[in-house]
Amino acid sequence: APVTPDASRSVQLAVIPGDGIGPEVTAEALKVLEATPTGVKFEPTRYDLGAERYLATGEVLPDTVLEEVRAHDAILLGAVGGKPGDPNLPPGLLERGLLLRLRFELDHYVNLRPSRIFPGAASPLADPGEVDFVVVREGTEGPYTGNGGALRVGTPAEVATEVSVNTAFGVERVVRDAFARAQKRRRKLTLVHKTNVLVHAGAVWWRLVQEVAPEFPDVTVDYMHVDATMIHLVTNPSRFDVLVTDNLFGDIVTDLAAAITGGIGLAASGNVNPDRTTPSMFEPVHGSAPDIAGQGTADPVAAILSGALLLEHLGLDDAAAAVERAVVEELAARTPGAPVVTAEVGDSVAARVAG
Amino acid sequence: APVTPDASRSVQLAVIPGDGIGPEVTAEALKVLEATPTGVKFEPTRYDLGAERYLATGEVLPDTVLEEVRAHDAILLGAVGGKPGDPNLPPGLLERGLLLRLRFELDHYVNLRPSRIFPGAASPLADPGEVDFVVVREGTEGPYTGNGGALRVGTPAEVATEVSVNTAFGVERVVRDAFARAQKRRRKLTLVHKTNVLVHAGAVWWRLVQEVAPEFPDVTVDYMHVDATMIHLVTNPSRFDVLVTDNLFGDIVTDLAAAITGGIGLAASGNVNPDRTTPSMFEPVHGSAPDIAGQGTADPVAAILSGALLLEHLGLDDAAAAVERAVVEELAARTPGAPVVTAEVGDSVAARVAG
Ligand SMILES: CC(C)[C@H](C(=O)O)[C@@H](O)C(=O)O
Ligand SMILES: CC(C)[C@H](C(=O)O)[C@@H](O)C(=O)O
Repeated sequence: APVTPDASRSVQLAVIPGDGIGPEVTAEALKVLEATPTGVKFEPTRYDLGAERYLATGEVLPDTVLEEVRAHDAILLGAVGGKPGDPNLPPGLLERGLLLRLRFELDHYVNLRPSRIFPGAASPLADPGEVDFVVVREGTEGPYTGNGGALRVGTPAEVATEVSVNTAFGVERVVRDAFARAQKRRRKLTLVHKTNVLVHAGAVWWRLVQEVAPEFPDVTVDYMHVDATMIHLVTNPSRFDVLVTDNLFGDIVTDLAAAITGGIGLAASGNVNPDRTTPSMFEPVHGSAPDIAGQGTADPVAAILSGALLLEHLGLDDAAAAVERAVVEELAARTPGAPVVTAEVGDSVAARVAG
Repeated sequence: APVTPDASRSVQLAVIPGDGIGPEVTAEALKVLEATPTGVKFEPTRYDLGAERYLATGEVLPDTVLEEVRAHDAILLGAVGGKPGDPNLPPGLLERGLLLRLRFELDHYVNLRPSRIFPGAASPLADPGEVDFVVVREGTEGPYTGNGGALRVGTPAEVATEVSVNTAFGVERVVRDAFARAQKRRRKLTLVHKTNVLVHAGAVWWRLVQEVAPEFPDVTVDYMHVDATMIHLVTNPSRFDVLVTDNLFGDIVTDLAAAITGGIGLAASGNVNPDRTTPSMFEPVHGSAPDIAGQGTADPVAAILSGALLLEHLGLDDAAAAVERAVVEELAARTPGAPVVTAEVGDSVAARVAG
């Protein structure tokens, strides 16, 4: 089971580079992890999961591979997804069979997505102000469970359902994690939901936020409908500190959050099991971008920052902060509009953290 | 049954001013409708539905009132919702019991939400470009059906579900309507969904877009995940012409659309039954804003533009265009930052359309 490493110990890292630009950005994230003076040794094992393996073998995530991955301390993932419209690749198969399956099997109930505006980052907002918030997205239930089905498929009488499943068990644990994170930050938690329409799910989220709140008396709580959240994210994103929400709302909110802070090229994420009974998984929010793959021009910053989240999860807070600082320096030194060279970004950040 | 009015005929209008700023903005919308040279006479009947009536009588939407409303040619609605946190007003009760009940009972399957950047409108985007698109949001199914429930409510073992119901019947009709609107505009339709995760619902939406497409060979179709749509809406909103999506995604997307085009103070909507078997309902996207109610400072432009959608639905296209033009002139004449006086905006737009 993954534990906080000590100086005498090595960290067993499962690396899933994936498809498209995944391998390119993962290589740089690994380079930076290995250069950071942590006192621990990273021992990476690569797993060639993704579109290529599926197309060659029909395998998405064999159970034996899942068990091997599970035996690691942490997972670093690049990006998964083949060429859009590839007739041999059923749409969504890899996302569900690999990405979501890992999140569910490894019980990654905290999908952690920090958003801040880095120096030099080009926000599409005219006046974003200071932006520094974290979305704690539930990762193991809600509309992502695959519950639902369809009747009379392909006919004019088809009925298709999707069932969002929300349990007190699942909501309470992610809410408590979000409160704890808020307590270590600016002590403000916003529940995002649609309680006026989704009354059953809304009630369980609302209730558990009220029930857990007394454990964190110094954290201020507010509530915002998901539609209103859209407005606040583009007109006053500084108001947010920690947002907690369900799996689907979190998916939507975090892409907008990434966009307003300068693009998903910079957005990092952690699929975290805070109980540490399984390895947590760290991945950039961006996809595999097959259109720019293999050119060495993908921005590895999101992958590198995902590496910083990995360090933090392992308890290596100083090292995590050092990587963040190095990225800030790197971004500040960029010439606006100049093309990115993937390996140079990794080299430069690695050099900065090394000293 | 509501029909296209001719010059000799009057339009029976059910007016539901509602709560907060609802009555103030509705009065101006009505003022403009009555001033517009349409050749038809509007005969408004007011219905005092909303928080006040509920608090006084416990009634939300009595069946007898619904049947009276149903007998009209169209409905103009202001905004519904009491003071936030009012202990006598169960959260969401009015929204579901009044607003959503009207949409469902009157089979308003096209929830129409145009977005454009008007002159002088303050977009939070640094460089929005030309924005002029319409979201066709499904209005009678999806996650809004109230299907779902909860087990062991209030206990640590609670399970709460929300069921999104999607039928070929319901999807096909809204998709066809969206294609028809695209054909009259820039001939581009974007389906917004999350087909890679919500596979059952996603499949029926995807299939019906493919099946209806051949009827509109001059309309180009594309598909975008709802999360990616967030990014495009803030980085490149000009790319959109008509978007078609489900009830919940539509709710989220249209609030973002309103925000980037200058705020929900300007966003109009129609709850339309294109079959004209029931009266369609027109309402601003904004809420009742109890904090600024009664001060005469609410911007009535969204309500006035909802009136323009009403005119268009009644087949009075020239009158609708005249109202839009008058609003454009009015907005262009505004001093940025100057406070809005609700009645003056109505007077000024009414004077412009009258003459
Ligand atoms: C690829 C997809 C299944 C995934 C999700 O919806 O969670 C992605 O959008 C993300 O946000 O990580
Ligand atoms: C008030 C609420 C029920 C409603 C909705 O969710 O549809 C509103 O947000 C809207 O967009 O008209």
